[in-house]
Amino acid sequence: MDSSEGVLRTASAGLKSLKILTEQIQISSNGNCDIVDITREIRELLHESMLKKGSANISVVGSTASISTIEYEPGLKRDLPELLDKLIPSAKRYHHNDTWGDHNGHAHLRSTIIGTSKSFPFINGELLLGTWQQIVLIDFDDRARQRKIIVQFIGE
Amino acid sequence: MDSSEGVLRTASAGLKSLKILTEQIQISSNGNCDIVDITREIRELLHESMLKKGSANISVVGSTASISTIEYEPGLKRDLPELLDKLIPSAKRYHHNDTWGDHNGHAHLRSTIIGTSKSFPFINGELLLGTWQQIVLIDFDDRARQRKIIVQFIGE
Amino acid sequence: MDSSEGVLRTASAGLKSLKILTEQIQISSNGNCDIVDITREIRELLHESMLKKGSANISVVGSTASISTIEYEPGLKRDLPELLDKLIPSAKRYHHNDTWGDHNGHAHLRSTIIGTSKSFPFINGELLLGTWQQIVLIDFDDRARQRKIIVQFIGE
Repeated sequence: MDSSEGVLRTASAGLKSLKILTEQIQISSNGNCDIVDITREIRELLHESMLKKGSANISVVGSTASISTIEYEPGLKRDLPELLDKLIPSAKRYHHNDTWGDHNGHAHLRSTIIGTSKSFPFINGELLLGTWQQIVLIDFDDRARQRKIIVQFIGE
Repeated sequence: MDSSEGVLRTASAGLKSLKILTEQIQISSNGNCDIVDITREIRELLHESMLKKGSANISVVGSTASISTIEYEPGLKRDLPELLDKLIPSAKRYHHNDTWGDHNGHAHLRSTIIGTSKSFPFINGELLLGTWQQIVLIDFDDRARQRKIIVQFIGE
Repeated sequence: MDSSEGVLRTASAGLKSLKILTEQIQISSNGNCDIVDITREIRELLHESMLKKGSANISVVGSTASISTIEYEPGLKRDLPELLDKLIPSAKRYHHNDTWGDHNGHAHLRSTIIGTSKSFPFINGELLLGTWQQIVLIDFDDRARQRKIIVQFIGE
């Protein structure tokens, strides 16, 4: 009897093992290098998950947008589009545009370089971000879009 | 006896906990900004793993290549090398080339900026990618190479 | 009795499930695109963790630095700052600088493009990096700083 209770305690410790939770959020963007702060939405999902420590992977589905972090303030919201339009111009003619007759070659190239997903650690139920560091969707496409963002937590 | 069977059920629930599987694939590339679609190989490994939900981390070993996503079509396969050759020219003389007498300084710099690994969520045994979003190896080195790619799944 | 010992073995297999360990390291940097090799620190934490296989997520807290990999040699340590100063000049006037009266707009933009976190697989207790591939903090800010880096292992 004692021994079997010992097993129970051990097994129940085993049950506190890691979980994976996968959520999806829809974000409206204006495209054209629109930068949308999604930190609050991710925080709310994290709090609802009741997870205390682990990793949050944030991915945007598609090939003309990126996930990254930035200090979300009006100056940088103008600087990033200006910089990218200098480095990877939207007005240029790309071979991609010839393939499909569309005009978003620049959006694809920016997404490939900056990436569509990032992972962030959390402890005590809170993301380990700097005070002036927000998680953002950057939508490079040449039109307003509804974006599907996958928020996946691995943790306990 | 009843109580011991209860423990068994509990323990077996504990056994459904997360697993890590680490696989390696070899990919031949032509270098010189060759873009190789590796989505099918990753999907096959995911299906073989029998995992249903979790995260796939894809890494290329080395410092002159990157992993990212792109719409894998002929136009963008020309656009990305042209863009990178404008921004981070292969023909330029780099201090790195002086260090070793080689000619791939640009390849190192591109790899540092775009990154060597990315993580992607999956549910129902399928990667959550867009229809026109493929996972690719981009090999910046100045010669054909055999690349070692690590595919690591964390999931259940 | 036999059956209860069977449970014990099963439960103990369950206990070998994945763990998350989150460590923090402090790194001094000179800013101004200083590149600091943090591979040794991460390796030491990995060895102390006793974990054998899994994933290491490395994040820098803040919005003016990045984590990436590079061949850590003197040539590239000059090439990367020169390249970034050409693409995203530090001397340029940014709207961000107008917002706060500071001079690090370029540092924010570089951090957004290169990213603040990366994940690396490990097996047999060792990171799967190339021989000439080091994990580095790149500090773009315009002054020396103490940087907080989160090292999170998920593994077994």
